[in-house]
Amino acid sequence: MYGLIGKMRATPGQRDALIAILVEGASSMPGCLSYVVAQDPKDPDAIWITEVWDSPESHKASLSLPSVQDAIACGRPLIAALDEHHETVPVGGHGIGAAA
Amino acid sequence: MYGLIGKMRATPGQRDALIAILVEGASSMPGCLSYVVAQDPKDPDAIWITEVWDSPESHKASLSLPSVQDAIACGRPLIAALDEHHETVPVGGHGIGAAA
Repeated sequence: MYGLIGKMRATPGQRDALIAILVEGASSMPGCLSYVVAQDPKDPDAIWITEVWDSPESHKASLSLPSVQDAIACGRPLIAALDEHHETVPVGGHGIGAAA
Repeated sequence: MYGLIGKMRATPGQRDALIAILVEGASSMPGCLSYVVAQDPKDPDAIWITEVWDSPESHKASLSLPSVQDAIACGRPLIAALDEHHETVPVGGHGIGAAA
């Protein structure tokens, strides 16, 4: 499996709008086992995204999906910074559901 | 919802053993919507754990479960350091399955 843990900051006051775009864009991505969008309670602009994919290839292919391309286009103006980006290799746990 | 993102380091050579303990301990925790244990591909001792719970209370209660207490007791000697610990508020996404 392939995982990503990332933290981004929305432009001030735009976190909810950016979250809505991210969640909408992630609704149906083949090979996506988990995609969680979360607020950082200590920073009103910060968003955490944690992802699990069945393979790096599935993740790469998702970037070409129209829904994801739309989300990137709509979301990019609302992103102030990409603070953290970690690649992981998920090995187990709970809630790594069937791929979308 | 309540989320956690954490990074720990196993004692050298013990990552796989620690991961096995973590995954085993997380098999049945009421209110746990997602619990993903992952290797850090850049650090042979590093482990990422990302969690989603239906509430902070469910998470807190899980720490008293026999299975979790056993995992803590068995795992603690294999933990070299707790590097990162972030609380989050998950708001949406995919793979936030039904609670265990």
